[in-house]
Amino acid sequence: MKPRILTGDRPTGPLHLGHLVGSLQNRVALQREYETFVLLADVQALTDNFEQPDKVRRNVLEVALDYLAVGLDPQACTFVIQSQIPEIAELTVFYLNLVTVSHLRQNPTVKTEIAQKGYGEAVPAGFFVYPVSQAADITAFGAQLVPVGADQLPMIEQTREIVRRFNGLYAPVLVEPQALVGRAARLPGLDGQEKMGKSLGNAIFLSDPADEVRRKVMGMYTDPGHLRVEDPGQVEGNPVFTYLDAFDPDPARVQALKEHYTRGGLGDVKVKRHLLDVLEGTLAPIRERRADFAQDPGAVMMLVQEGTHRGREVAAATMARVRQAMRLDYFGPG
Amino acid sequence: MKPRILTGDRPTGPLHLGHLVGSLQNRVALQREYETFVLLADVQALTDNFEQPDKVRRNVLEVALDYLAVGLDPQACTFVIQSQIPEIAELTVFYLNLVTVSHLRQNPTVKTEIAQKGYGEAVPAGFFVYPVSQAADITAFGAQLVPVGADQLPMIEQTREIVRRFNGLYAPVLVEPQALVGRAARLPGLDGQEKMGKSLGNAIFLSDPADEVRRKVMGMYTDPGHLRVEDPGQVEGNPVFTYLDAFDPDPARVQALKEHYTRGGLGDVKVKRHLLDVLEGTLAPIRERRADFAQDPGAVMMLVQEGTHRGREVAAATMARVRQAMRLDYFGPG
Repeated sequence: MKPRILTGDRPTGPLHLGHLVGSLQNRVALQREYETFVLLADVQALTDNFEQPDKVRRNVLEVALDYLAVGLDPQACTFVIQSQIPEIAELTVFYLNLVTVSHLRQNPTVKTEIAQKGYGEAVPAGFFVYPVSQAADITAFGAQLVPVGADQLPMIEQTREIVRRFNGLYAPVLVEPQALVGRAARLPGLDGQEKMGKSLGNAIFLSDPADEVRRKVMGMYTDPGHLRVEDPGQVEGNPVFTYLDAFDPDPARVQALKEHYTRGGLGDVKVKRHLLDVLEGTLAPIRERRADFAQDPGAVMMLVQEGTHRGREVAAATMARVRQAMRLDYFGPG
Repeated sequence: MKPRILTGDRPTGPLHLGHLVGSLQNRVALQREYETFVLLADVQALTDNFEQPDKVRRNVLEVALDYLAVGLDPQACTFVIQSQIPEIAELTVFYLNLVTVSHLRQNPTVKTEIAQKGYGEAVPAGFFVYPVSQAADITAFGAQLVPVGADQLPMIEQTREIVRRFNGLYAPVLVEPQALVGRAARLPGLDGQEKMGKSLGNAIFLSDPADEVRRKVMGMYTDPGHLRVEDPGQVEGNPVFTYLDAFDPDPARVQALKEHYTRGGLGDVKVKRHLLDVLEGTLAPIRERRADFAQDPGAVMMLVQEGTHRGREVAAATMARVRQAMRLDYFGPG
């Protein structure tokens, strides 16, 4: 049997090049090697977007289109809408008993995010407990592996703690997952900020039309000291070259460009035009497939519904084992 | 249409005379006037008994037997096992977004209970958020009225806040409940403590055999200054007389006994024997019905299963409206 992976995204906006480099390409590469569940995490998206249910709803379709566009194959991997799996909510409620408030308060990932969002003590309880919901996501599908960035390791550790606690208290029915830490580069933003972010205004989306990509690339941050073409330029911290490292299939060519830029005589406009060509080499086929699928949103949602149905069966089987372990199987299994 | 009531108990132990006076008699009196849902709140019981799932499981049957024994009629009211209603967990997860951690921290009822249990910051998250789960219980069944003691008013207020928040944000699909504050006397413990409690060792259980009731009544706390029969005795704070007030169908007789006791010449043993007669007048028929039902636990659980099935239909209808309001009805209703 193939090892099982859980991965996914919060449908709060369309996916961008940062997602492509950071997770999507990896998922496509692994989708036949592993049994992959891809969660459209609308319930989690609502924890800090509960005032915008329409945004979340709309982006479930957008993200599904992005998945299909980059080559995730709904026959090979299973797309699941989180809100359609009541078992995840049930597991969340039970797991909340196994974690203390002070322990949640110390979760480094949540701590950082609460600070970033400026919530303080006014953090919505749903957001505060989301590591517990993630444990429910992962264990509902019995995932052995969860691909994460290094900053997400505390979340997996929280899941592992809950699993050990549950299995020790009741019966060993939950799978303890492992983190699969990718070597995935984090793509900086168009503005040179460390991270490309949906809401930071510094992203190239997979759904951007070609002229939008052109506009964004030509407006990218480069070396601010590189005023004239003949000046020597800085390659380090220059997102144009970071993107070339990430997307140009010809590393020798990138190396030559870097050297030329460093010694002077290579203009930013020229490098950006090359980057645009390179990016379009990646983006054009994605854009084309996306446009095809987007013509029939009903058919896309049908694929998602089929995946969700398969996911629900797996989650229901987990829940039956959990009920039995917790002595909640009053009326027999299921 | 009859107004709908939600009520229930945590199945952590058999019910006692305090429950009878405080809620059960009221439920029986109202069960035909209102549409009553009676929740066997096993999920809530697990929030502070998660290490004892067998205890909770066992007491679901015990409490159901107590209900039937006191005259709750499963044709008139609906017995529901909380853990069998996944919609309650789903609503809990969504409602957690609508309440902040600091607001939960300030809930007077939870604050007191956390202090009593000595949890401090190590309070299990499930216990900490239980007012949110109660909001899910109440609204899942669309209850208009919730019978509570005065100390539980903050819980109903929390539910009302969540309902207003939800209805304002999404769509007015939830019923805002009202507290039905009973004039119900709180029965003191056998030891004269303010409250009769399951775990305080000062309770007469509805399931106690007659000789156990006799032993408990004869050992009750009375006026410690009433040493000799001829001494004047104190009626105030004397639980023997409080019980007579609660259970003796003849108030004039109680009044005469009180006067006699106060002026002296009435022994505690004599009053206790009278109390025992009075209590047996209430308890003997309950005990008899309980024994009858207890002969066929399978039939009792069948009644509970039928109720749970009816309750699930109501909760599922609520959930369909909630999904639609939150734009989570991707694949149509249900």
